[in-house]
Amino acid sequence: MAQPSTIRVGAMRDSSVNVVDLTYIPARTYIAYALFGISNVWSIQHMGAAAIDPRGGMAEADNPHSLVVRFPQTEPLITDAGLEIAPLTVAYQTYGALNSAKSNAVLICHALTGDQHVANAHPLTGKPGWWETMVGPGRPIDTNRYFVICSNVIGGCMGSTGPASLNPATGKPYGLELPVITIRDMVCAQARLVDHLGIDQLFCVAGGSMGGMQVLQWAASYPQRVFCAMPIAAAARHSSQNIAFHEVGRQAIMADPFWRGGRYFETAERPSKGLAVARMAAHITYLSDEALHRKFGRRLQDRAAPAFSFDAEFQIESYLRHQGSSFVERFDANSYLYVTRAMDYFDLADDYGGSLALAFKGSKTRFCLVSFTSDWLFPTANSRAIVHALNAGGASVSFVEIETDKGHDAFLLDVPELLSTSKGFLDSAARARGLPAAGAQP
Amino acid sequence: MAQPSTIRVGAMRDSSVNVVDLTYIPARTYIAYALFGISNVWSIQHMGAAAIDPRGGMAEADNPHSLVVRFPQTEPLITDAGLEIAPLTVAYQTYGALNSAKSNAVLICHALTGDQHVANAHPLTGKPGWWETMVGPGRPIDTNRYFVICSNVIGGCMGSTGPASLNPATGKPYGLELPVITIRDMVCAQARLVDHLGIDQLFCVAGGSMGGMQVLQWAASYPQRVFCAMPIAAAARHSSQNIAFHEVGRQAIMADPFWRGGRYFETAERPSKGLAVARMAAHITYLSDEALHRKFGRRLQDRAAPAFSFDAEFQIESYLRHQGSSFVERFDANSYLYVTRAMDYFDLADDYGGSLALAFKGSKTRFCLVSFTSDWLFPTANSRAIVHALNAGGASVSFVEIETDKGHDAFLLDVPELLSTSKGFLDSAARARGLPAAGAQP
Repeated sequence: MAQPSTIRVGAMRDSSVNVVDLTYIPARTYIAYALFGISNVWSIQHMGAAAIDPRGGMAEADNPHSLVVRFPQTEPLITDAGLEIAPLTVAYQTYGALNSAKSNAVLICHALTGDQHVANAHPLTGKPGWWETMVGPGRPIDTNRYFVICSNVIGGCMGSTGPASLNPATGKPYGLELPVITIRDMVCAQARLVDHLGIDQLFCVAGGSMGGMQVLQWAASYPQRVFCAMPIAAAARHSSQNIAFHEVGRQAIMADPFWRGGRYFETAERPSKGLAVARMAAHITYLSDEALHRKFGRRLQDRAAPAFSFDAEFQIESYLRHQGSSFVERFDANSYLYVTRAMDYFDLADDYGGSLALAFKGSKTRFCLVSFTSDWLFPTANSRAIVHALNAGGASVSFVEIETDKGHDAFLLDVPELLSTSKGFLDSAARARGLPAAGAQP
Repeated sequence: MAQPSTIRVGAMRDSSVNVVDLTYIPARTYIAYALFGISNVWSIQHMGAAAIDPRGGMAEADNPHSLVVRFPQTEPLITDAGLEIAPLTVAYQTYGALNSAKSNAVLICHALTGDQHVANAHPLTGKPGWWETMVGPGRPIDTNRYFVICSNVIGGCMGSTGPASLNPATGKPYGLELPVITIRDMVCAQARLVDHLGIDQLFCVAGGSMGGMQVLQWAASYPQRVFCAMPIAAAARHSSQNIAFHEVGRQAIMADPFWRGGRYFETAERPSKGLAVARMAAHITYLSDEALHRKFGRRLQDRAAPAFSFDAEFQIESYLRHQGSSFVERFDANSYLYVTRAMDYFDLADDYGGSLALAFKGSKTRFCLVSFTSDWLFPTANSRAIVHALNAGGASVSFVEIETDKGHDAFLLDVPELLSTSKGFLDSAARARGLPAAGAQP
């Protein structure tokens, strides 16, 4: 586990930003939080609903265990939908130290239900950070070498402005009053954060899945600000099949009578069953047929012969139910609607007259794309299409398709070829950027 | 559309069977039924729930627009779960005429949510029969030549004993009091029907998907009774991934508060939202990424620019929602639990010490297997494994993998190679069986 950096970002704020609130709790505190059930976090884990705060919102949404920057009301984010979000709040974590030239910052973009807790224990679950295989001391994204930033996407529920955040206009959580958000809106909010941290150019922007979409959007929207980019298991547009799976999840949530048009925070119940079903359906798409066969096959759960019932007879059923029920303890149902919708709208070429090559034309950014053979959600063909567009746009690009049976989730897992590819690419880019070698004295 | 045969099956019943009820309504009547809204069928289509009868059950479940054979209480079906179903009712349709040698009967086994209405208008929806491309005069399964039988599977909701049928012990629909059913149980019930029709050996047993599983079970359980077999887009066991998708559907149904532990027939509501979500998730698996891209892509529904909302923005969303809402008008939620569960339990080799070859050892049946390149639910590898087992068991087998982007649903669609393969195989088998050539005078 990487130690969150102790840098006080308030010291770096630029004059236009009013840092209202900086909450910072060391990672080890989270574990105590989860183990000893201080306040409302623990109890809610037994309620099967995302942690709520006394005002009826979600605790992490307004008081996250993170660094937070709240931009002033007078500086709204204008979304792609043409609506304003103000004030805009961005919750984030950092690891490592920013060098004096501010040239060693790596921005990590998280996936659909990920968050800013890349390399520290999760404040709600107590589990390790979601990318500790990739990020930490001596890891490919080496926190001894790079200043690593990860913010919660807007539309999320871990501290950046999302549907569970309090709407200052009403004093209640936004719910569906929050404008629908796009990948570009998420990236705009991240750019505000990077401005706030005083960083002109990021050394690298990296992420998988929806994180990879953000990487592509960064490279297209801010080509001068991205020295190198690693979109992993990504796509330049969301496919019809993937929109379909998202729609199933949304319908499952909206079919739950406790969803109440998104206004469930005003009641004691949460649409937990609907959200769990949504997660179960999605979770299948993150794995592969082969991996499921290898891990579970047709093995029965805790029995030698079938009971001929509708209980969880098979191990895969028990596993899926657990995925559903544990998810609702850390995630907000409305946020699930927003983040899936953001992915659905993503079609990078559409902003460039239908030409993906135009999105990257003349880009000086170095790209490294990675796909996985068994990923059927974002299959290799998606990455290859991006590579072709980058080639057509004259960009520098490496591309690796990794043989694995782990499916889409491989980008989160301990896949040696992913780690060695990432390390090799970043080491090479760091030399080109003039960063000191790993282990060198600063 | 084929004309249902006018043969009176009562005349053929064997002495052990007491034919209690024979309901028979010509196909054209169904259309009037749907068009003019006689009785409760039409109105319920607007209620978004499967048609119910005045007693609180489902109309088709106890009074189907089909031929029906009800076996006596004294001859229960002993299920694989070790429980009895009595009386056992099997609802079915027939097309064409049985020859005097009773050697031209083709049994069609339907898929998960199919029914006996193979080649006539559906009594609830008014739509054409589900396999009119394959079955009818001059079609590959030629009703001028063959006597075609299709029964509703037990566990279904179109007239064979299922959870919506009245439980004679209580006078109320079974709900979850019906024993859990397996593919072998379905086939046992079909064998009773075939006995009842006085047929020793079926010329052919054919079906796709869950129908294909039944075909395999027929060939394994009753090798002497199956001259030739056509399992299409099938598998000898249900995969972990497929169990997972089914479990999502079941959880969606059981999460619906109107499901009430399966006892919804005692109330005015139905778990329609949960069932619709289940159908939506399943429907994606019946298609292919390529077909969805070709049919819908990322096109918006009735608008030029995105509205940035959670309405059905994309055509694929609108299509999926329609699939969900139309399904609940013709299918029972508890039946969905039963038929998915039957598929989950299917593992033919398991009954033969783990050896699929043993299941077919010494079989004289001629097999023709068909798979589709874009079918990711029952991929070609599944069919190939069956072919290997048949080869090892010394059986006669043809195998065709058809190139198509239509996914699993290809078996239901107008795919010329499927139709020509089926026709060629059946013509050849008919010659071997000594049936007169097509068009010959009987």
